[in-house]
Amino acid sequence: MTIATALAAALPEGTVLTDPDLLAGYRRDEADLVPAGTPVAVVRPRSTAEVATAVRVAAGHGVPVVPQGARTGLAGAANAVEGCVVIAMTGMDRILAIDPVNRTAVVQPGVVNAVLAKAVAAEGLRYPPDPGSWESCTIGGNVATNAGGMCCVKYGVTTEYVLGLEVVLATGEVLRTGRRTAKGVAGYDLTRLFVGSEGTLGIITEVTVALRPPAEAALTAVAVFPTTAAAGAAVAAIAGEGLSPSLLELLDATHLAAIEAYRPMGLRTDARALLLAAADTGTRAADDLAAIAALCERSGADEVFAATDVTEAAALLEARRLAHPAMEKLALESFPGGNGGLIIDDVAVPRARLAELLDGVDRIAAEHGVAIGVVGHAGDGNMHPNIVVDRADPASLERGRRAFDAIMRLGLDLGGTCTGEHGVGLLKREWLAREVGPVGMRVQHAIKQALDPANLLNPGKIL
Amino acid sequence: MTIATALAAALPEGTVLTDPDLLAGYRRDEADLVPAGTPVAVVRPRSTAEVATAVRVAAGHGVPVVPQGARTGLAGAANAVEGCVVIAMTGMDRILAIDPVNRTAVVQPGVVNAVLAKAVAAEGLRYPPDPGSWESCTIGGNVATNAGGMCCVKYGVTTEYVLGLEVVLATGEVLRTGRRTAKGVAGYDLTRLFVGSEGTLGIITEVTVALRPPAEAALTAVAVFPTTAAAGAAVAAIAGEGLSPSLLELLDATHLAAIEAYRPMGLRTDARALLLAAADTGTRAADDLAAIAALCERSGADEVFAATDVTEAAALLEARRLAHPAMEKLALESFPGGNGGLIIDDVAVPRARLAELLDGVDRIAAEHGVAIGVVGHAGDGNMHPNIVVDRADPASLERGRRAFDAIMRLGLDLGGTCTGEHGVGLLKREWLAREVGPVGMRVQHAIKQALDPANLLNPGKIL
Repeated sequence: MTIATALAAALPEGTVLTDPDLLAGYRRDEADLVPAGTPVAVVRPRSTAEVATAVRVAAGHGVPVVPQGARTGLAGAANAVEGCVVIAMTGMDRILAIDPVNRTAVVQPGVVNAVLAKAVAAEGLRYPPDPGSWESCTIGGNVATNAGGMCCVKYGVTTEYVLGLEVVLATGEVLRTGRRTAKGVAGYDLTRLFVGSEGTLGIITEVTVALRPPAEAALTAVAVFPTTAAAGAAVAAIAGEGLSPSLLELLDATHLAAIEAYRPMGLRTDARALLLAAADTGTRAADDLAAIAALCERSGADEVFAATDVTEAAALLEARRLAHPAMEKLALESFPGGNGGLIIDDVAVPRARLAELLDGVDRIAAEHGVAIGVVGHAGDGNMHPNIVVDRADPASLERGRRAFDAIMRLGLDLGGTCTGEHGVGLLKREWLAREVGPVGMRVQHAIKQALDPANLLNPGKIL
Repeated sequence: MTIATALAAALPEGTVLTDPDLLAGYRRDEADLVPAGTPVAVVRPRSTAEVATAVRVAAGHGVPVVPQGARTGLAGAANAVEGCVVIAMTGMDRILAIDPVNRTAVVQPGVVNAVLAKAVAAEGLRYPPDPGSWESCTIGGNVATNAGGMCCVKYGVTTEYVLGLEVVLATGEVLRTGRRTAKGVAGYDLTRLFVGSEGTLGIITEVTVALRPPAEAALTAVAVFPTTAAAGAAVAAIAGEGLSPSLLELLDATHLAAIEAYRPMGLRTDARALLLAAADTGTRAADDLAAIAALCERSGADEVFAATDVTEAAALLEARRLAHPAMEKLALESFPGGNGGLIIDDVAVPRARLAELLDGVDRIAAEHGVAIGVVGHAGDGNMHPNIVVDRADPASLERGRRAFDAIMRLGLDLGGTCTGEHGVGLLKREWLAREVGPVGMRVQHAIKQALDPANLLNPGKIL
């Protein structure tokens, strides 16, 4: 019996897809320039039991299993392995509970981030993690990749909000980790081990998240800089003064031009860099924002202006959110035949080294003869250098790849990490090994071996 | 060659203790009613290399290794195993770096919590975790047990502040985990796996912690309740209203009497329960504290009064900090011959179930004919029921043990955990197994096996 037949026999009708036209739609996430295979079957489970059944059947046939959420990832972690079974979790999309007193929510992994954020807001609560793809990405994917976002500079990343998980293991057993209490130290922290494990240790079937009281209205300001390094210096100065902006984002000239071309909104396209800052400290917000503005000016900003009202503040945030699609359009149009594309990178360095990172990226772009736009979460030292390449031109791709490697090397040399929030997936396996070293890799492999000895779950990702 | 001789030969003079009188001082932490063995040798390393050497020598002789910090733990995790090598980390007590811009500190594990807190305060920063033993416990011990404290209700526990670790593995290899950046998702979260692992997976030799800007001055209030359940209801109401007190502690009548007897300070000893609350929300603190006070009154408080000045607020905090020594003195004097003692428990339940937990503990005390005082971090649903026993009377000890088990069972029945912050150690192994179940225990054992196949490191703890 083929794996597809076995799955169809073991699962409810309509759960298993085998039509080649449909399978083709489950090959990859949004990562560019990494390989993707084609699954032999796609399982769309409606329950934990169906996930466990699919894993057991696949294990019985020795066929690898690749879990997928909304496939908005940027490192290829959700890419199909040739001949694998894809388990598409988007159908398990129910919010099971929201508890205002304990400030927790229990959700299935297919719940979209924005759907959860709105549902808890309706209860007067907040789920802070807000990755760029928040309107389409799922909580399960957020947990599997430990997703970040713009609020992390003050409110932290996904792992800070995960209290407990239900996970289907490689054996098909169902594991419950963590707790629903505010505190707990009962045994090893299995919850945080699964967070960020990119589907290589188990398949997340339920998530218990911690919620927070709603943030207060934020005041927003924009600072325009003559150099990216000056913007980086401003970020270090803001942190050094003990200020905690609720948002501190950087857009470089390339992104400003791309956004203005994508949707004209009167951005200062003559600027070399723009810092977008917000403060949500209630009655102190105006003072904090003024202090941030003063530090930007002291660091060399040409101009700093505060949003006069929520509409203007929202427009500035919208501009930031448009950076990714706008840059993709710019890349597309940079080369003939619609072959222009982006290598989207993700690197984080200690805040104090941000200016060096930004200068270094400029130098790398010049050295390798490629256009690189930089955007990102400046307050975290987490930047996304986006390298423009011509997919139809091997030489352009090679220059782009060399620039990518040079940026990774620079990030590590500055005491940083090869990925601040996008994860390792297929894109950064080599760089993970360089970052954590042989002892670290041995331990990572030992843990994978302990939980998935047959290497059944998302093989070839991370490790 | 004996293990002691081999260690002495491999390590600098004065590093290895073998004098029986000295060894006796390294047998146990502060946990009561759990067994402790006697080490054959105590190693007092000054460097990571010396820790690695000691582990290699012990491994070569097949002798177990038990790491110890200040031995202020309350679950026996630091207790010597008979014939083991104790590695006492208190001599590695240097603060290696404090970085105000990146808001990180790098410390050796023997640094005392209060010493780090004061050192970063001098730089205008804050290290929030504040376990009850903060003036004597070490950061290494805090990380190994994922220690909590009074600030956790708003600022979280130790693991939220650990960015990276240096760890000596069972092989003697040195592993570096994590990062010094604000964000990072490179591979499995080994850092959080070691946090709370109680020395069973590796020996922590360096810790990189995240720091925060200083908290603002807190305003403090006290609410006096006619029943502990009413105090529990107030806690649920405060959380349900979206308030975030920076402190929310409960003292029951037994502790109030014990503290007043230990150091008279005019506490309302006629109260059944006292809630100590603080707000550090700057210009909003007075409003927030007033809202907390109103919710306490609505929940049945007889009296609520705010501290009129910092001195009075400090006195109230001091009273809370005296709860543990005062209760120990009360226990000591409760039975003739200085044989009175405490079984100190630690249980956490969802906030909404706190009132049920408190009622249940009263019922358990009556049913088993033992005195139980309750104190703890009410805002986290994390309580410490302290059971008074006569160590010289097996029947009294048996009643105490039965009451302890009944409290554990109640905590789990209420959806809670068997340990909110003290850890598993030797005291709660049976309850860990009940809480996480067979699949969870299998995974925990698989991870221990992967990192310490010979069961060399702190054997018999947690698992």
